[in-house]
This record gives sequence, structure tokens and C-alpha cells, in this order.
Amino acid sequence: MASPRRIELIILGNELLLGARTNEHLSYLASELGSYGLSIARNFVIQDDASEIGKVFKDAWKRSNILITTGGLGPTSNDNTREAIAKALGRKLKFDEDTRISIEERLSQTGMTLTEKVMKQCYYPEGFTLLPNRIGTAPGLLYREGNKTLIMLPGPTAELKSIFEKQAIPHLKKSNFLVHEKNSILVRTAGVAESIIEEHLTPIFEKHPNIKVGFCSKHNLVDIRLSPKRPGLSSKTLKKTAETCKQALGNHFVCFGATPLAEVVIQMLAERKKTIAVAESCTGGLLANAFTDVPGASQVFAGGDICYNNDAKIELLDVPESLLLQHGSVSAEVALAMVTGVAERFCSDYALSSTGFAGPGGGTKENPVGTVYLGFYSPLGAWSRKIHFMGDRPTVKQHAVNAALDWVRRELLEEPSLSGQPSIEEWALAEILK
Amino acid sequence: MASPRRIELIILGNELLLGARTNEHLSYLASELGSYGLSIARNFVIQDDASEIGKVFKDAWKRSNILITTGGLGPTSNDNTREAIAKALGRKLKFDEDTRISIEERLSQTGMTLTEKVMKQCYYPEGFTLLPNRIGTAPGLLYREGNKTLIMLPGPTAELKSIFEKQAIPHLKKSNFLVHEKNSILVRTAGVAESIIEEHLTPIFEKHPNIKVGFCSKHNLVDIRLSPKRPGLSSKTLKKTAETCKQALGNHFVCFGATPLAEVVIQMLAERKKTIAVAESCTGGLLANAFTDVPGASQVFAGGDICYNNDAKIELLDVPESLLLQHGSVSAEVALAMVTGVAERFCSDYALSSTGFAGPGGGTKENPVGTVYLGFYSPLGAWSRKIHFMGDRPTVKQHAVNAALDWVRRELLEEPSLSGQPSIEEWALAEILK
Repeated sequence: MASPRRIELIILGNELLLGARTNEHLSYLASELGSYGLSIARNFVIQDDASEIGKVFKDAWKRSNILITTGGLGPTSNDNTREAIAKALGRKLKFDEDTRISIEERLSQTGMTLTEKVMKQCYYPEGFTLLPNRIGTAPGLLYREGNKTLIMLPGPTAELKSIFEKQAIPHLKKSNFLVHEKNSILVRTAGVAESIIEEHLTPIFEKHPNIKVGFCSKHNLVDIRLSPKRPGLSSKTLKKTAETCKQALGNHFVCFGATPLAEVVIQMLAERKKTIAVAESCTGGLLANAFTDVPGASQVFAGGDICYNNDAKIELLDVPESLLLQHGSVSAEVALAMVTGVAERFCSDYALSSTGFAGPGGGTKENPVGTVYLGFYSPLGAWSRKIHFMGDRPTVKQHAVNAALDWVRRELLEEPSLSGQPSIEEWALAEILK
Repeated sequence: MASPRRIELIILGNELLLGARTNEHLSYLASELGSYGLSIARNFVIQDDASEIGKVFKDAWKRSNILITTGGLGPTSNDNTREAIAKALGRKLKFDEDTRISIEERLSQTGMTLTEKVMKQCYYPEGFTLLPNRIGTAPGLLYREGNKTLIMLPGPTAELKSIFEKQAIPHLKKSNFLVHEKNSILVRTAGVAESIIEEHLTPIFEKHPNIKVGFCSKHNLVDIRLSPKRPGLSSKTLKKTAETCKQALGNHFVCFGATPLAEVVIQMLAERKKTIAVAESCTGGLLANAFTDVPGASQVFAGGDICYNNDAKIELLDVPESLLLQHGSVSAEVALAMVTGVAERFCSDYALSSTGFAGPGGGTKENPVGTVYLGFYSPLGAWSRKIHFMGDRPTVKQHAVNAALDWVRRELLEEPSLSGQPSIEEWALAEILK
């Protein structure tokens, strides 16, 4: 009945079934497996109920070669996956002392003690392999039976990802479930609509009917994922096609892989040994946060001022009060004064500023909600630019941040760097070394 | 076999199974049904394949009272839901002239013509009711058999929502599936682990076996959703229980409903006519961003400094250089100097600061990665606190932000406000007026 390498996924998700969260586990695992040319045949989201878990598990286990479960391994009374699956397979639960020690160590760092509830996590069904959890408390579990593999992952996303990538994937490789190396390339672009990108690239894709092309656009970025339609397409062909896309995209091309835009900008600045500062009004810290999300940002990111009212703009950024009175705080003139002020304050080589109406309140006839003025400062001079974004408050903020980052990126492309952009071969090498 | 009002959901989702999108249909439908006291027992995400659809549909139809499908009703060759379900139920497809006219009208507006592919959408299984689509082309479908109802919705989210709310919900009400009005309450807590909250509240829930309790914890917040186990529980009982939870939780209680922590803090400060400023090192703008995500934040949020290196801490926040040299930038002393400096700079009543090692690099034996010192400034004085968080860089940052916000919240609770916290009745009224 089972077709070769059929994968099913069971997600324990009272929270999902109540609508309290979106299903991030599915999108993460699907794209990870997808990069090996594998796809998930069926995904269940079920309630944290022992009998429900047992029923769904038994059926899915019959059909699948790889069965993955997520969630339900933690300490609360809703965490029943371990127990329900042990019962379905007729396995006893055994206690693991190493897990107890590791949980105790972890808890002691946060000043908590080991309660009886937490101890649940030290048990595992007989014959299963424990996959230690380096981030949280509940370990993952792995079980093999003939040509079938069961992988049980904890629910918290960071723990799930860490265990899946560092432990489950190597297991699947060793047992020949993943016969091909990761073979997918993501081409990231910024600043251009998906439909225009698609028009640009269609002639390339028409020449390669074996390549599966997926578009995904979000907040001013468009990602194009190239992968084999079925396992077997050479990675050389895929790389060559990705390189052709890059050439066709020109300055719209950001990078291969899903590197955040801020990280790309930080890399470009680091190569040039330059620094950047930010002065934020309407983006309110989101731009600084994008920079500081990048490990090692401090080398390049000099700092920022969040100047949410006129007093702060005057006091901290030396924006002349007359400018604020004459043009209003949401204006090209103020964006320019802010960006110059912050560059001087932090002695940075480059700077960015934002001032606008993120909504839902505010806005004028001339500058309706969604209007943002960005400022850009470089050793060559300072400029400002007016852009209008659609969407709610967080969307306008995120769009403005990406537009600001893309502005520096494009300007830096015009300036010489020490090393230049990495080629697809250098990128692929770096991926392997990761 | 079927329990009363069992609901299952089948989502046709090649894109979801490839990881190209997240499953928004589930979260939308689950929270809509949840607000009527109903929950989805099981959700399937399956591939757009006629035999797969047939198999999953037959099983689910046996078990369910309400079965909902989304997707697969459109014009492409992957759209097989209508045909597969007609076959599974042994129904012939019939042509609907009204649908043809309405699709033709819609297409003519966009300058397109009716092709044979598009005509697929004019067919419906005999005995089914068409649910006209006012936004797109593919109509939804509804079918009743004994105590069972099948609802088939198109995939595009806006069309799905419109048909579900305006047509499916009234049908379900008329046929007595939704006998009660919307009825669920979310109780938000902060600063305490899910397992401790559960221990606190279990005695309350044991007295109310008719109330369904769902926990959802994320970044130092734990949400508890109370809803009726089955329709019929009075909203009065639900409110009374929520109020009892609030009392039992004491200062751990944040609010009824999913108001962001920063918004709760802003409301409390606004009631007291006070302002707040932030000095961020390791949270790098995320704390300022949490405040500025709240519409109208400017009346309370004075501004912030992102001081990512020592120079900025000395220049902008008047942190004494000797302190940095003696104690290091990640220390209680520096957190304190930062928070005092920023309160003075922005002339704010309150202030928060952060300095720590968010990882993955950095950290010392005494202050390993995940260590964060928070500073708190108020008219009564200034304090600092050391906390250790687990997780990757963005997780540590988010945890630190929520811990900082929760700190101000708890301190403000001890100070008199003008209006006090809203009662559950006031909250319920505000919800209705929304």
C-alpha cells in the first residue's frame, strides 16, 4: 500500500485547531524536505487527545515510510503524544537518567526546580532513540521498524528545527531515505513586484521544464525557489539556471538563499569597513531591530535614535524647529535633517531615517496614511525620498524598513567593495561548510 | 461513531505541503467556529489529487457532522475537489446557467473571456446548493444529508471568508448547528511558566467540566482560552470563571483578550498620564518597536536610544567610562546607568534598558549567552535585574522585551491609577462595540 518514501506529518495542535496560532511546523518541514526533492503526502492537525492520537497514528504509520509528529512532548497534562504512541505500538515507557540530568541543569540556570510534571519528559518508549534537546527540555524521539522511520519532535519551533536539522536529517541520510543532497536554490530579489520578476524570468524557465519554480513574495521581497521536479536533476544545471536568473535580474538580485536584507547590507558595509546609524520616527525601532537581529552587527551598526515626537527630533538629532514648523514632521526636509543629524551624532559613514504615517490614525490630504519619507546619508551626500505603502500599521512599518535597506544596498552596489559579491559556486561552498 | 457536532476540515494544499505558504485557512476557520463554542476535531492538508481527495473525504464524512473543504474549486487542472467528492457520493455533475452568467460578467470587467477551463466552475454535484461567490469566480457548495452538513469553500482567502461568513454561517444557524451566539474568552498572563499557571487554575477548571480550556504560551506570555465544551454554556458562567481566574492569578493576570503586552503598558501609562523611554543594547530596537506598534503610542512613548557599542553608551546616555571598564558593558551597573541616562535625556517618568548577550557569539562564564540585564527607572528610583533566557538570538531578544514590559506592568499595578483595570463586563462590552 505504501508508495516509496511516502511522508506523512501529524501535528498536535489544540492551539492550531482553536485558531490561536498558524501552522509554522508544516511550512518549515515541507520546505526542508522539499529541498531534498521530497514532499509531504498528507498532514494531519489533531487535538491533544490520547485516543485521537492513537487512531490517527495507527493509520498513518501503516501508509508512511517516514512519519513525523510535532508537539505533545512537554510537561503539561495536554502533552500525550509519547504515551499515546507507546501504547499504539505496545511499548513500555522507560526512564532516562541522562535526560533528567540535562533537564535539571537547564532548569537550574533559570532558577527553577524539577517538578513531577517536568519529569514526564524523561520517559521514552522502549526501543526508541532519544534525540537530545539542546535548546529546551523535551527531547525528540526516533524509531525505526523495517523500511519505516518515525520521528517525534517537540512543539516549540526553535527546538523542533534544531533537533530536525542536527539529528533527524543525519539519521535519514544514514538510513538512505535522503539519497540526494539538498538540491534547491533560492534566488532573493528586492524592490520589484512578483509579476515583473516573473515576466523577466519566464524565458529562462521555459528552457528548463525539469526545474520546479516557486514564487513567494513578502514585504517588498520576492523569493524564487528553484528545485528539481523529481530527484535526479543535476545540481550543476540548477546552479547554472540560478546564475542566469541573477544576470537577468541585475540590481534587483539580492542574494542566493534566504539571507535577511539587513544581513546583506551589513555584509556589504563590513566588506567596505563602513558603519551605519539610523534615526527612526514611523518605523519606531524596527529598522534598528533588523540590523541587530544579525549576529555580529555591532561591527557595522553604530546605533540609532527613536525620535517619536518633535522634542526628541530637535534635542537628539538637531532637527531645526523652524523646519518642523514650516514643513511638518512628516516631510522630505525633516527626513533629511534627521539622517544628517544621526550620522553626525554616531559619527557613522552611512545613515538611514524614516518619518511618516503608519496608521491607522494621522495622515493629511497630501500625505495620507501609508506615506513614508526615507532619508539616506552617505559620504557622497544626503537624499530623501517619498514612498506610499498599502496595508496596516505593522505592514507599512515593515515595507518602509525593507525599502530603506534596499536603498542602501543599491547605493552600495555602485561603490567599489574589497571582495565583490560571492559567485554561486562560493555560495554553494559556504552552504556546505555551514 | 460520530459524536454530536464533530467538525473536520480538509484543506487542498499543494502549496502548503511544499512549504510555500502557511495554513491561514485553519487559523481563520478555527477561530470563527471557536467563537461559537465549536472546535475542529481534525484538520487534513492533502495534495490536489482526485484519489487522495476521495479517500480522505469518505472517511471524514463518516465521522463528521460538519465537514468543511477548502480549495480545489477553481479552473486549473489541479482543481479536483468538486469532481472527486461528486464521485465519492455517487452524484452526477449538473450545469448551472446562473453561475455561467455571473462568471461571464465578472470576467468581462477584467477584459477576459470565458474559456472551457473556466466553465468547470459552473458545474455542481446534483442535490448540492450553490453558494454564490461575490468576490471571485468559483462558487462554494453546500450539501445536507441527515444530521450532516458538507461545506465546500474556494481557496482564495478573501473569497473563502466572504462565503463562509455571509452564507455558510447563516445556513448553519438555520439548521441549528450554531445554536448559540459567539462565546469565548481569552485570559492573558505574563511572567510565569505554563505549568505553574495550570497548577494555579486547575482547581477552578475542575469545578467547571463544561468549559474547554486551551493553553498557548509564547515568549513569556501564557494565554488561556475558555470556551464552552459544547454549545449551551451560558456566557455568564464563562465570564464568571474568567473573573475567578483573574483573581487567582493576581499580578500574573495581564488582560482579557489578546492585547499585546506593550499596549497594556501604554494604556496603564496613559491612564496615569506618564511617559516612558528606552535604552537598548541587546534588544536592539525590538523594545521600542513593541511600543511603536501600538497606534497612538506617541502620547506615552518618549523615544529611545539604541546604544550598541560603548562609545554610544558613553556619548548618548552618559554611562561613565569607568563603569564600562570596571564591570563590562553587560552588567547590572551599566543597565542602571543606561536607564537613568535615557530617562534624563528624554525627560520621561519611566524608562527601561537592556544589555546582554543575545548570542550566538559573546558571553562569559559568569554571563553566558542568553544573559540579559534589564534596567527599570521610575519616579521612585532605579533598579536592575539579571535574567537568563533560553533560545536563539531572536528568541532571547523577544523574551527580554516581554520581561522588561512585564516589569513595568507589575510596578505600575502597585501604583494608583485614575481608572483602574477594566472589569470583565467592561471588557465584554468593549468587545461587542468593536
